[in-house]
Amino acid sequence: MAASVFPEVAAPDADAVAAARARQDRLTKPTGSLGRLEDLSAWVAGCQGCCPPAQFERARVVVFCGDHGVARGGVSAYPPEVTAQMVRNIADGGAAINVLAEVAGAGVRVVDIAVDGDSDDPILSAHKVRRSSGDIATADALSQDEVTAALEAGKTIADEEVDSGADLLIAGDMGIGNTTAATVLVCALTNTEPVAAIGRGTGIDDAGWMRKTAAVRDALYRAHPVRSDPVGLLRVGGGADLAAIAGFLAQAAVRRTPVLLDGIVVTAAALAAEALAPGARAWWQAGHRSTEPAHTLALAQLELQPILDLGLHLGEGTGAALALPVLRAATATLASMATFDSAGISGQPDS
Amino acid sequence: MAASVFPEVAAPDADAVAAARARQDRLTKPTGSLGRLEDLSAWVAGCQGCCPPAQFERARVVVFCGDHGVARGGVSAYPPEVTAQMVRNIADGGAAINVLAEVAGAGVRVVDIAVDGDSDDPILSAHKVRRSSGDIATADALSQDEVTAALEAGKTIADEEVDSGADLLIAGDMGIGNTTAATVLVCALTNTEPVAAIGRGTGIDDAGWMRKTAAVRDALYRAHPVRSDPVGLLRVGGGADLAAIAGFLAQAAVRRTPVLLDGIVVTAAALAAEALAPGARAWWQAGHRSTEPAHTLALAQLELQPILDLGLHLGEGTGAALALPVLRAATATLASMATFDSAGISGQPDS
Repeated sequence: MAASVFPEVAAPDADAVAAARARQDRLTKPTGSLGRLEDLSAWVAGCQGCCPPAQFERARVVVFCGDHGVARGGVSAYPPEVTAQMVRNIADGGAAINVLAEVAGAGVRVVDIAVDGDSDDPILSAHKVRRSSGDIATADALSQDEVTAALEAGKTIADEEVDSGADLLIAGDMGIGNTTAATVLVCALTNTEPVAAIGRGTGIDDAGWMRKTAAVRDALYRAHPVRSDPVGLLRVGGGADLAAIAGFLAQAAVRRTPVLLDGIVVTAAALAAEALAPGARAWWQAGHRSTEPAHTLALAQLELQPILDLGLHLGEGTGAALALPVLRAATATLASMATFDSAGISGQPDS
Repeated sequence: MAASVFPEVAAPDADAVAAARARQDRLTKPTGSLGRLEDLSAWVAGCQGCCPPAQFERARVVVFCGDHGVARGGVSAYPPEVTAQMVRNIADGGAAINVLAEVAGAGVRVVDIAVDGDSDDPILSAHKVRRSSGDIATADALSQDEVTAALEAGKTIADEEVDSGADLLIAGDMGIGNTTAATVLVCALTNTEPVAAIGRGTGIDDAGWMRKTAAVRDALYRAHPVRSDPVGLLRVGGGADLAAIAGFLAQAAVRRTPVLLDGIVVTAAALAAEALAPGARAWWQAGHRSTEPAHTLALAQLELQPILDLGLHLGEGTGAALALPVLRAATATLASMATFDSAGISGQPDS
């Protein structure tokens, strides 16, 4: 089986969803008064196939790291060498994702998919595809073999995590220039003009924004022939990290494991993953809405409503990790609240 | 000193706020990329008067319970006896606030301020003011002595909690009919017409909404002479639970203790507390935005931006408890992330 072919994705368990909704209506609070928490709790029940659902015991963040040749064209506020430095920072526990994952009770794994350097850590680089993806403004990001290897890497990492007991997955990203490639995917897969999609990334100035826009336009022009082929698009206008995240997200759905999506990079890969494995999006929730315009476009296409909207634009999985306590809270209400009957409380007149 | 007179409220520590903002800019992430978390972390530093701030060790939710005579007029979807039943449910750990506080790592205390019944628990009713506040549509909610006692009760409870080591406070509410009285306070203190402020509470139908609107109009008419006097307003159109919450929120600020506000009932009391103790609002953050229109009006008047917006309309402190992990995450980034220098990472070109 080619890595780009995923088995059919089953839907979450409709009976468990219905049982969750019925149970929410019996809990000691007005019907619907927990708002979005009630929907999220039903989603968790559906993913787990049981009601009440169990609390997450092993939530895992995997940060996919990769450089992008396009970054040498000045599309980012940071120099490309920051990618490798930040990989080390995440491995050492000093990055934002380490801190937010700890607060949320999740473990963090960092993987070098295409960092422009040679890691001295064989575990970290066990799934490495190449050093930096190509400059998408002027060349393909990957060869056909490389895009296949990257998708396979993401799929394998998802399998490793689920086989190790992960019950919730978060994909994160780190890579100077990766929002440029992500924006190309979003523009192609949502049929959007670049100017409506391009944001400030990690904080570029006006001149940087113009360079980024030019790069996205050039890459979109190059990717035009493959714009409706997710694997071709990842190969020509994406990158190894984006392809690996897409494989990871698709395989999580195949393995019936719920996912919290993060920002623009992960959600761009999610658009490709949904094309590769239709129905996968039913296994995902959007952790947050970032400030990148392309993120909002991608969420709308996936019909996902972000849980948080706090102006984050960092990546690494930070927005998803920040949303995990909300998902835990939703799960806990369904599992632990008293019912009107058990607590001996008068219900609504019509109930 | 009368309970309605609070000492001057000091501002949070401006030096600690400035130190927090400077430190956020040195952490290993793009400037501003943690969005609202950066503001929240600076606020915590200011409240604690030190940077980096300490993580919350003893966050406490106090649920203020009281009945309202106006509930006998059919302004709620639930019968009045549910208040006492829910007090028992919270004491037994079965309510939404118990579950959400546990997820957030906060303790819960429930206090009977004006439940229409006699509790068999002397600790729970140690601060009880009366059995049910009066029907504000036709009579004053409280006597002058009672409103003073209720404000004093809230003040004393805040002191008890802070003296026991509380480093973050959340006020919650439980009481059939309490959103009706809260809406009267918000309309009076924001100069808003009832139809623009009245919501569905715990889920009333159209006929119930019309009864609620009539009750609010009648109470506002009665309260007109005291509309700009917070104590008079709490006495005529409020209730003992609302006065106690106002005293609690004002005293928390006096004691330099940060607070997460909850929904319409707590935020209506906060409007009164800010009038009683000007500057108190600098010690508060808005945990969430509920679906009650009057809540949004009150937040706007207090110039507070809600952290979450998830369609909750339950009270009990649930929206605030749900936001606590976000505040913990903000605090943790400032305290625990590596700096560019410590991690040896290249900063932005202009930094």
